[in-house]
Amino acid sequence: MVGKSQLKFIKSLQLKKYRKANGLFVAEGVKLVNELLETELEPEGVYTTQPELLPPGFSSFEIIGKSDLKRMSGLKTPNKVLAVFRIPKAPEAVMEEWTIALDGVKDPGNLGTIIRLCDWFGVRQLLCSEDTVDCYNPKVLQATMGSIARVNIIYTPLEPLLKSSALPIYGADMQGENVYGINWPSSGILVMGNEAHGISDEVRGVLEKKVSIPQFGNSTTESLNVATATAVFLSELRRRVS
Amino acid sequence: MVGKSQLKFIKSLQLKKYRKANGLFVAEGVKLVNELLETELEPEGVYTTQPELLPPGFSSFEIIGKSDLKRMSGLKTPNKVLAVFRIPKAPEAVMEEWTIALDGVKDPGNLGTIIRLCDWFGVRQLLCSEDTVDCYNPKVLQATMGSIARVNIIYTPLEPLLKSSALPIYGADMQGENVYGINWPSSGILVMGNEAHGISDEVRGVLEKKVSIPQFGNSTTESLNVATATAVFLSELRRRVS
Repeated sequence: MVGKSQLKFIKSLQLKKYRKANGLFVAEGVKLVNELLETELEPEGVYTTQPELLPPGFSSFEIIGKSDLKRMSGLKTPNKVLAVFRIPKAPEAVMEEWTIALDGVKDPGNLGTIIRLCDWFGVRQLLCSEDTVDCYNPKVLQATMGSIARVNIIYTPLEPLLKSSALPIYGADMQGENVYGINWPSSGILVMGNEAHGISDEVRGVLEKKVSIPQFGNSTTESLNVATATAVFLSELRRRVS
Repeated sequence: MVGKSQLKFIKSLQLKKYRKANGLFVAEGVKLVNELLETELEPEGVYTTQPELLPPGFSSFEIIGKSDLKRMSGLKTPNKVLAVFRIPKAPEAVMEEWTIALDGVKDPGNLGTIIRLCDWFGVRQLLCSEDTVDCYNPKVLQATMGSIARVNIIYTPLEPLLKSSALPIYGADMQGENVYGINWPSSGILVMGNEAHGISDEVRGVLEKKVSIPQFGNSTTESLNVATATAVFLSELRRRVS
């Protein structure tokens, strides 16, 4: 039995300010919750209408009714399982190997896709400018799935951190050098910018090289989506240095 | 002045069956509509609350009130411009150069992103199985922007068409050969499968080679999203044959 104030509290975690104030986030759906239960994330509460959907042997859950699930859920059609997890303490940034830095990425789907790409391509650290969308936003989680627990995501002012790093700093930019001709070093930082405005002037000042993906054919498309562009850059990076 | 039945008719085009029955689709938002007005697509009606947002010199529009725009729109917050366009007649499939074939892609954002990728990487033809999401779905259009008019999109049963083609047929599959070791020919077909189930058994039977993107590091991610995987494949294809 979950009390009214608890239902309301869980629902409030849809909003960043309450996630931040309480150090908690919500994950919904059988697949996402089960993936997260297999990671090092600490569950604070697991609620389900169908306990047989949880991992075998997992026992710290509460069975709830559909109407209660609906009241704590951020989804129009709630999906049988909802869990509250502790937001892990962000580690200190470690400037070695390859790091991706996001400068003002706003779309939750794009951030989620980029986290999943970092996981796939073995990039362990993702720096996010403070105006990048919150990685515990429910839409980000839907796109990342379990990858959120395998990439160190650090929100920080980018410019001072990048400036103080000895690593070479690359930035995605339409006027940059052709990505297919770059001699990538074995470690570095790749900055991807905002969907509409690209990399901010402040961060642009610390880039050592701008890189771009050439257009083929007669396309007049303005640019690639930031998540698909990140896919191409990571593929190029790993193909050559691995 | 737009009559009640016309408002209702335009609103009905949010649904595939009415788009199909009438050969019309709806585009919303200043950026998308203005991009489409610059292509060969035929506008059937352009409605706006602020005509100064339309391209200079463009005059065949109707000025409408906010409440009427809201009644014809599929968006919660309508965006000043809405246009109805004729769905162009799908061309015959031409099996030459590189073609992408989608086998049951369901997510509108993924299809939209893939159309934009085809445009960027100079792939002129996109085949879609009949159970792939409709490319004139409003969410697809939001992700493709003007690219929808620069790629020939053909809905067709894939298996017979692929079978009758002389081109080599590649398919994305987790158990496939490493994409970074493939010697791509100058023309061919690349099949991408459904988000959850991959390529259907029927189409799998006509593949000549399965290809995959290797995982780096210790990720336990199941797979890359189909749109980001397409980005990596197209990048590899173009980098080598261009």
